[in-house]
Amino acid sequence: MISGKGRILLSVTGWSPDVWLEALRDAAPDREIVLQPAGSSDPTIDYAVVWKQPTGVLNRLPNLKAIFSIGAGVDHVFHDQELPEVPIVRVVSPDLTLRMSEYVVWQVLDHHRQGPAYRDQQRRGVWREDRDQRAASEVTVGIMGLGQLGLDAAKKLAALGFRVTGWSRRAKTPPQGVKGYAGDGQLDAFLAGADILVCLLPLTPETRHILSAPLFARMKRVDGRGAPVLINAGRGALQKEADILAALDSGVLSAASLDVFETEPLPPESLLWQHPRVFITPHAAAASSPPHLVPPMIRQMERLEAGGDLENVVDRSAQY
Amino acid sequence: MISGKGRILLSVTGWSPDVWLEALRDAAPDREIVLQPAGSSDPTIDYAVVWKQPTGVLNRLPNLKAIFSIGAGVDHVFHDQELPEVPIVRVVSPDLTLRMSEYVVWQVLDHHRQGPAYRDQQRRGVWREDRDQRAASEVTVGIMGLGQLGLDAAKKLAALGFRVTGWSRRAKTPPQGVKGYAGDGQLDAFLAGADILVCLLPLTPETRHILSAPLFARMKRVDGRGAPVLINAGRGALQKEADILAALDSGVLSAASLDVFETEPLPPESLLWQHPRVFITPHAAAASSPPHLVPPMIRQMERLEAGGDLENVVDRSAQY
Repeated sequence: MISGKGRILLSVTGWSPDVWLEALRDAAPDREIVLQPAGSSDPTIDYAVVWKQPTGVLNRLPNLKAIFSIGAGVDHVFHDQELPEVPIVRVVSPDLTLRMSEYVVWQVLDHHRQGPAYRDQQRRGVWREDRDQRAASEVTVGIMGLGQLGLDAAKKLAALGFRVTGWSRRAKTPPQGVKGYAGDGQLDAFLAGADILVCLLPLTPETRHILSAPLFARMKRVDGRGAPVLINAGRGALQKEADILAALDSGVLSAASLDVFETEPLPPESLLWQHPRVFITPHAAAASSPPHLVPPMIRQMERLEAGGDLENVVDRSAQY
Repeated sequence: MISGKGRILLSVTGWSPDVWLEALRDAAPDREIVLQPAGSSDPTIDYAVVWKQPTGVLNRLPNLKAIFSIGAGVDHVFHDQELPEVPIVRVVSPDLTLRMSEYVVWQVLDHHRQGPAYRDQQRRGVWREDRDQRAASEVTVGIMGLGQLGLDAAKKLAALGFRVTGWSRRAKTPPQGVKGYAGDGQLDAFLAGADILVCLLPLTPETRHILSAPLFARMKRVDGRGAPVLINAGRGALQKEADILAALDSGVLSAASLDVFETEPLPPESLLWQHPRVFITPHAAAASSPPHLVPPMIRQMERLEAGGDLENVVDRSAQY
């Protein structure tokens, strides 16, 4: 139990803290917010709001009650080798979820409706009506990762008429109309059915580089359905880009939409930039804003201070 | 009341009747289907299945009970200056509706998510994360035409978080979360609010060329919201292409997705082809197939023969 309004440490690396500081002050004008702990051990900090906090900084806060991740993924929190044993909370915001589902639906439709081919026809001034168009009910979209984001995207794709399947490491109850697969044992069956593979997995030691040659090999088509499409809006470290390029060029994958990359910004020399069957966005799939993401964190602090429980707490053993 | 299985005349102009004939034979193996009436007055025909039937051909069928339009629009039926006074039935097929909603959602998202700008960034090898992205809840999609197609698209866009409005000539009950406008009196208010205008209107004498300079002038923005986007998947004759080009070039419209054109195929000399802010598809938004469209027609014939009523009958005075 915290008496009064807990004090917040904001620790972000890789971007300016200003917008987060402003959003925290707007959402919690009555709380003190600091950018650095005082001294080698600061007992006055109750909460940490973090993005890639420096290793050890949280461990010097003896009264820390919870760590709030900026962003749905929490892999950046676990980079810290000296992470204290306090609850880690992921952000769940309707705004973030809506934006991610927008991106997923947009990219699924752009592949399904042959956006690249029609744009190419237009460039060449070609009017061609007889392009074969499959019905959504003939296309299976397989979603890897059935957290908040995966479930919402699954529902919206099902509403558009697609066959939707979902795979997660641990068994989950999929929404109506979505067929769920779980664990290593069901991965092959899931991959064999997916025409469009959407990756929204958390990045953990178990999922690192999962989107690589061995997985693509298990998607290889022999039944004339056409090679599958890959969409990754999870984390760049889920993929091996050299393997994606090889799979595209050997025909194992037909196309890819990538929002995340092994190195960001994507280096100028990457062959992905100019690949005719790759669509690149600069980690912009779900660019939610601090004014949307911060209020749910503050509400959780208030719930905790009122004697309630934290929600959306990460499973430390699974790291997501 | 028709005794037994009514006989069908298939009259299509502009494409080969073969696929329709095959679909009719598959769906109604027990019915006789002919491609021409016998003689100058054929009393043996009960139904006509038509696309741009030649003027007068239906008027020579004294026992015709109903005309079935291939396609959701029926403007092509009214081209016939000697149309007999029998019910005209539009096709309503879940497959057609799903495909049209796919196109609408796809194009709305491509504009909303700045597809052209990201594709341009990729071509130039530019990684730029700071592009301003509005939330769907800040964007109003206005749908002109609230028939089966408009209503379905409205529901799906609302589920994605967009503010959705709809306008129809006659007042309709919009789905939950969709604000309805009707008639000339409410057109200005509807247009003033729409950031993305989706046209799914039927083509009638009243709607011909509705998408032209006077309408665009009523959408003109003075509040810094950015110029609206036009999406037309109705009929080409709803638009004046010279006015669309002028509105794009003067900044009254910011972009357009056009699936239909005043002349189809779109002539090679049209300036639309190479316009950087126009996306062209070759009348492919809802390319449903005869095997999907024919069975609902046959079911209606059976219902009529069983003493039931026809559904989806066109209002002849309104011509839709």
